[in-house]
Amino acid sequence: MRIDKNHIQDTNQKYIAEHNRHFDFLSSLLSGKGYQIDSIIKKLGDFQVAIPSWALGAGGTRFGRFSFQGEPSNLEQKIDDVGVLHALTRTAGAISLHIPWDVPNDYNAIKEVANSHGVTFDAVNSNTFQDQESARESYKFGSLSNASKVIREQAIAHNIDVIKIGDKLGSKSLTVWLADGTNFPGQANFQTALTNTQNSLKDIYGELPDDWKLFIEYKPYEPNFYSTVIQDWGTSFMLANECGDKAYTLVDLGHHLPNTNIEQIVSTLMLKGKLGGFHFNDSKYGDDDLTVGSIKPYALFLIFNELVYGMENNPQNPYPAWMIDASHNTKDPLEDLMQSLEAIQEAYAKALLVDQNLLREAQVNHDVVKCQELLQDAYRTDVRPLLEKARLNRGGALHPINAYRSLNIRKNLIKDRGADSVASGL
Amino acid sequence: MRIDKNHIQDTNQKYIAEHNRHFDFLSSLLSGKGYQIDSIIKKLGDFQVAIPSWALGAGGTRFGRFSFQGEPSNLEQKIDDVGVLHALTRTAGAISLHIPWDVPNDYNAIKEVANSHGVTFDAVNSNTFQDQESARESYKFGSLSNASKVIREQAIAHNIDVIKIGDKLGSKSLTVWLADGTNFPGQANFQTALTNTQNSLKDIYGELPDDWKLFIEYKPYEPNFYSTVIQDWGTSFMLANECGDKAYTLVDLGHHLPNTNIEQIVSTLMLKGKLGGFHFNDSKYGDDDLTVGSIKPYALFLIFNELVYGMENNPQNPYPAWMIDASHNTKDPLEDLMQSLEAIQEAYAKALLVDQNLLREAQVNHDVVKCQELLQDAYRTDVRPLLEKARLNRGGALHPINAYRSLNIRKNLIKDRGADSVASGL
Amino acid sequence: MRIDKNHIQDTNQKYIAEHNRHFDFLSSLLSGKGYQIDSIIKKLGDFQVAIPSWALGAGGTRFGRFSFQGEPSNLEQKIDDVGVLHALTRTAGAISLHIPWDVPNDYNAIKEVANSHGVTFDAVNSNTFQDQESARESYKFGSLSNASKVIREQAIAHNIDVIKIGDKLGSKSLTVWLADGTNFPGQANFQTALTNTQNSLKDIYGELPDDWKLFIEYKPYEPNFYSTVIQDWGTSFMLANECGDKAYTLVDLGHHLPNTNIEQIVSTLMLKGKLGGFHFNDSKYGDDDLTVGSIKPYALFLIFNELVYGMENNPQNPYPAWMIDASHNTKDPLEDLMQSLEAIQEAYAKALLVDQNLLREAQVNHDVVKCQELLQDAYRTDVRPLLEKARLNRGGALHPINAYRSLNIRKNLIKDRGADSVASGL
Amino acid sequence: MRIDKNHIQDTNQKYIAEHNRHFDFLSSLLSGKGYQIDSIIKKLGDFQVAIPSWALGAGGTRFGRFSFQGEPSNLEQKIDDVGVLHALTRTAGAISLHIPWDVPNDYNAIKEVANSHGVTFDAVNSNTFQDQESARESYKFGSLSNASKVIREQAIAHNIDVIKIGDKLGSKSLTVWLADGTNFPGQANFQTALTNTQNSLKDIYGELPDDWKLFIEYKPYEPNFYSTVIQDWGTSFMLANECGDKAYTLVDLGHHLPNTNIEQIVSTLMLKGKLGGFHFNDSKYGDDDLTVGSIKPYALFLIFNELVYGMENNPQNPYPAWMIDASHNTKDPLEDLMQSLEAIQEAYAKALLVDQNLLREAQVNHDVVKCQELLQDAYRTDVRPLLEKARLNRGGALHPINAYRSLNIRKNLIKDRGADSVASGL
Repeated sequence: MRIDKNHIQDTNQKYIAEHNRHFDFLSSLLSGKGYQIDSIIKKLGDFQVAIPSWALGAGGTRFGRFSFQGEPSNLEQKIDDVGVLHALTRTAGAISLHIPWDVPNDYNAIKEVANSHGVTFDAVNSNTFQDQESARESYKFGSLSNASKVIREQAIAHNIDVIKIGDKLGSKSLTVWLADGTNFPGQANFQTALTNTQNSLKDIYGELPDDWKLFIEYKPYEPNFYSTVIQDWGTSFMLANECGDKAYTLVDLGHHLPNTNIEQIVSTLMLKGKLGGFHFNDSKYGDDDLTVGSIKPYALFLIFNELVYGMENNPQNPYPAWMIDASHNTKDPLEDLMQSLEAIQEAYAKALLVDQNLLREAQVNHDVVKCQELLQDAYRTDVRPLLEKARLNRGGALHPINAYRSLNIRKNLIKDRGADSVASGL
Repeated sequence: MRIDKNHIQDTNQKYIAEHNRHFDFLSSLLSGKGYQIDSIIKKLGDFQVAIPSWALGAGGTRFGRFSFQGEPSNLEQKIDDVGVLHALTRTAGAISLHIPWDVPNDYNAIKEVANSHGVTFDAVNSNTFQDQESARESYKFGSLSNASKVIREQAIAHNIDVIKIGDKLGSKSLTVWLADGTNFPGQANFQTALTNTQNSLKDIYGELPDDWKLFIEYKPYEPNFYSTVIQDWGTSFMLANECGDKAYTLVDLGHHLPNTNIEQIVSTLMLKGKLGGFHFNDSKYGDDDLTVGSIKPYALFLIFNELVYGMENNPQNPYPAWMIDASHNTKDPLEDLMQSLEAIQEAYAKALLVDQNLLREAQVNHDVVKCQELLQDAYRTDVRPLLEKARLNRGGALHPINAYRSLNIRKNLIKDRGADSVASGL
Repeated sequence: MRIDKNHIQDTNQKYIAEHNRHFDFLSSLLSGKGYQIDSIIKKLGDFQVAIPSWALGAGGTRFGRFSFQGEPSNLEQKIDDVGVLHALTRTAGAISLHIPWDVPNDYNAIKEVANSHGVTFDAVNSNTFQDQESARESYKFGSLSNASKVIREQAIAHNIDVIKIGDKLGSKSLTVWLADGTNFPGQANFQTALTNTQNSLKDIYGELPDDWKLFIEYKPYEPNFYSTVIQDWGTSFMLANECGDKAYTLVDLGHHLPNTNIEQIVSTLMLKGKLGGFHFNDSKYGDDDLTVGSIKPYALFLIFNELVYGMENNPQNPYPAWMIDASHNTKDPLEDLMQSLEAIQEAYAKALLVDQNLLREAQVNHDVVKCQELLQDAYRTDVRPLLEKARLNRGGALHPINAYRSLNIRKNLIKDRGADSVASGL
Repeated sequence: MRIDKNHIQDTNQKYIAEHNRHFDFLSSLLSGKGYQIDSIIKKLGDFQVAIPSWALGAGGTRFGRFSFQGEPSNLEQKIDDVGVLHALTRTAGAISLHIPWDVPNDYNAIKEVANSHGVTFDAVNSNTFQDQESARESYKFGSLSNASKVIREQAIAHNIDVIKIGDKLGSKSLTVWLADGTNFPGQANFQTALTNTQNSLKDIYGELPDDWKLFIEYKPYEPNFYSTVIQDWGTSFMLANECGDKAYTLVDLGHHLPNTNIEQIVSTLMLKGKLGGFHFNDSKYGDDDLTVGSIKPYALFLIFNELVYGMENNPQNPYPAWMIDASHNTKDPLEDLMQSLEAIQEAYAKALLVDQNLLREAQVNHDVVKCQELLQDAYRTDVRPLLEKARLNRGGALHPINAYRSLNIRKNLIKDRGADSVASGL
């Protein structure tokens, strides 16, 4: 499955006139206010978000799963799906693998597939929250934090394997999401679990190639419902500091207690040079893993406002790894991801429109009304023409979802793969 | 304090060219899609929101209050302040009084002041959450729900007084917000408190003029921190049903537990013909009473989407009473209210752009992606030119806050009233 | 698998002396304060809680499932498991079936098995949140609320089937938990979904035998993460009222937004005669389905305080149906359920110790300190000897879990069923 | 106001027989299980909790305050009130002052008053969340974090003053609770605010006497409702680390987002040697400041379980400073505090009953059921006789509240101070 660029151009014909009218109006308006349109469009185009392999099939809940037709049933097909997304949006130029769901058989072949789509391999993800069929030890009571040394060692070895697999593919970072925790008070000794985790992470860190990064994810609850070993950014930050310079905190939008001010966490981490990666999704209640921007787009904008600020003012922080971590079973996964990509681009574009100089001035003067006006002025701007232009410039679709539909891509995927194919993994 | 209409027009000169350009672009775009621009602008202009008298001074928290200069120190000045808001925005054509803070001395004089500003008297609000100096009985342990009959009677009598005061001013509704509840388990018998409340409300309802409505507000917590007698919409709805046809539920955006789906409550109440009033504000944690739209503008839009739907499809529901209930001490209260009014208008305008026919079609087809696209397409549109046009048509300011600042209104208020004037009430 | 009563008595020998000493002390203490010990013990013994068939296997999360050995693989084995629980605790004298997971092949045989354990059939539960293999229509986008009539009809027919199955077994109530809702704003029309649900429930209600009850469960979120059709008690109560006298609200402890005052809901429902059933579990974050009393035992006590009050003072409310709805994969399911049963009995016993006369007096006098003292005095009492006595009187085990372990029951179950047996259903 | 010890003994006569009976039963039971009763009672008696001066008057909410009669109107009277609490409970042997509300006029006289009650001066608290009448600069937009250097300097100087005042009284620690934050997105630059706070704290830290500690409190929201500079333990921990060895994190139970696992935070901080102080209260929704143990006593027990563990196993952590930070207006403040003290002692006693060796064994064996049984066995024990004995041994009251009432202490306070006296401060 591969989309012909010309076909994408064909779908654009229908929208190009309106796009031009809207873009001309907006760029004239913004230029009049002093914005550098070309620079903004370039930044939008350069912003690439990794797609995790598990988002390409229908997700589900503990109450069941409603699958989608034409799901990719192997790694090559998953990369093909990302290729489709990238061809249409030009902002999905990477895939993030999940091991052991995505172990390649033939590394060169897989790299060629990815290369042919212009897709690179972003952070690799280990999995110690489920037991694998071949596993000798069970992670039922934890992995890197487990009271049992032999289980910890199995989990450490798995992470090192993941690094090796990633290394062969050109990945440069390992993401550790640790589900370890407890369902009941007293089930584990908090201090022992934390110390074990620290030591296990150090062992993994010790095997990290020089040019790699280790991302330590945090999450307050689920799948454990009393405690989680790495429950918040403070714990992750502490662990990352104890590991070393190549260890960073990874923020997943859905991994917070109700009402957490996430943008402030982002800001603090960038100030300290420790924001390594970012997982996008949206949620209303918990780790709902809904389409990015579908519930709280203004919060996403505020987060991007801090990200933009940090990328411009915090040289101590590396360029973060971006990934979408959303997956549900009510939408075609590819359409879902295109909506997420659009929401990310939109929030980024609006954040780029915040006049940081005027904002700083208003902040210093405690002109709170003006501060709010400045953010809202950027947010209220309809930036879609900028996103369209960024895509257009790179050969993408003006309206990716419309193009996807008019090109009958899902229909073709079903024809190729069958209606009943099921994505490996979750 | 009264703003000369010509001065407002003068402030518009600076912005009129850009407004025209933006409006022309947008109206052409929307007309091309089949929208009736004139009708939308008329609806926006007709949408009037009441300003509560207590929002005109600086609010505060239990940790203290930082007052603002030039606060209105009596009812006439409060009405003047609403007059300023209305002159600039043309959408603040009503005031909502709080008794006993706002009892008029001379009813005719007060009505004339209001009339001169084009301001009417919306719902009147009783207060049984504080003890008044002259009061014989204390509300420390509740008012309409109190175990003591004599205290309940005092609270009932107060509410009837409020109706009479409102009646003389032309109000047509009474809002009862009941702070009654408990701080500690066991403090009160839930069933007795609820039954007392029901009976007290019926007594008040019995004194309601035929063309009046009774609005019953709900709130989960604060100022009581274990239980509140009317804790949720279900309780309010049940009480309203038991009172009769003129009793309705009033929704205050800030009066919900974390993550509540408020738009669904709005929808249910309108289906049942029981949404009487709506208090606007915004919040991140609890009843934070922040500027409308400053934290969750998309949630506000989703609520307006239900309000628009209900106003068009639920003749069983009366036209709701709108009020802003936000008040803080970090901004000039009048600028704060203008930001709230703008956010309300914006959400309303965007909701009016949702294509209900296409939405219904997508819903029936379970095209979830399309449903989201339709909402987001409306939401992402920059509707500010529509709001500006609605104000312009009625003699308001293109940019109310800029006009307010360039006309030095706060400075003049301070000159008139002094820096230390303090708003009566909260 | 069946426990010999004599074996249970044997296990008691080890604990009987300490039990007697503790019981004698406590009964003397309480008798001295005027409590009727015999009456309390009788109430505790009479309190029977249904075990749902799905709690007998290991539960899990969307991130996977760690199964337990010796799980019951058919309905007969599930009833056997409840028989074990009942033999040991004498408070688990009912099973609650989930259809289609538990459709009997031979009704008489199944009834005999249950009868031999002294176990009856409590409320039957329908399932329209998953697709069955044989189903023609999918519930992916809802069941009783679905925009499609043919899907609603399938769901209605299923519920009527469940009634018929339950009727043959001697059940007297149907529990409807409706997962219907949406993951994304705009996905469904709230009013249509609610009206469809109302009509579907009425159709089911119309088929209810005269001596049956319909329980309508509510839940704010999960498995849908934007909206749920029956999101709160207010919606359930409204639907039950519209169905008729045999329709009731069912409260599940885990189905509430953060910080909800559940005991107040219980109290209101009993006052209105509409509390039909109650599902016990515990949780820290959401619908965590943890062991009853493992996280918030005081909240459970406060709820029982209202239940006891209602059972004594609200003849308008029927005796509620009790069920445990907790299930996880970190404990032996039978031990887990015994811990839940113990916590329920404990909370009930403590609630029975609240001196309602003194409490009423303190409430009327607004002696809040005394109100709290009265509740805490009951709560702080170590009531375990009362629970033990109630079990002992009925032939149960003084320490059910210890007896279960010393009798090697799990080991025997594994021997009988194999290590790999998996419970049907969830 | 001073309670004659003999009078306390007199009030004990009524309860002594029952106490002895209950104590004998319990100590025999526990001794039989291997507990060292004397050691437990000694620990309970040694556990002293500071009373903050502001808890001695009625608190309130932003909606008003219902005062209590006989409140202490000056520092001497506040110390007298703590003296009353200490005489009755023998566990309130310290007062925590709030500056500027409690600046002594005559240090020696004040120290003598305290000494005569056996009361010492615990941590002193600065106040930069309100403007003082004499202040030149306003804290409306922050203090230690303020963008304005002159305001920061005022706030730093105030903290240094507080150290000096505390030093003269024998205090050994300064608690900084920073209300600084924002109400609206964009209002402040997060990084600037954090950096300013860091630098300000370092300046204060630089003036700390060698044997002092600096406690840095955190809180997610209120009085600011968008962001708080020190929003969580992670931020406080980071700041404390950057200050130095004498800086610690202070945990206030009410200062967390919904559902936070506080006991895990406590455990982590003790492991890292950074838990400096602990403020007790209880809450259902936010920082409700309710009586300790009145809402979630099991959570309090779980926290004490970690505190006991840390005090026994973490020599790297200093002995924490304990304080009650609860204050409401529905109870007599002194009775309220006695209920809090009792709940603290109860939780501590139960935590001391947790068999750490058996727990460790069960944890290592992943016997989750047993882990829970061990905690619940301790928690379900009625430990009141132990608390009584600890008080009795030190000359306190068996039933402090009953003694307080039978000795007519509030009546006498009103007689001495008048009904209308109002506590200085909050």
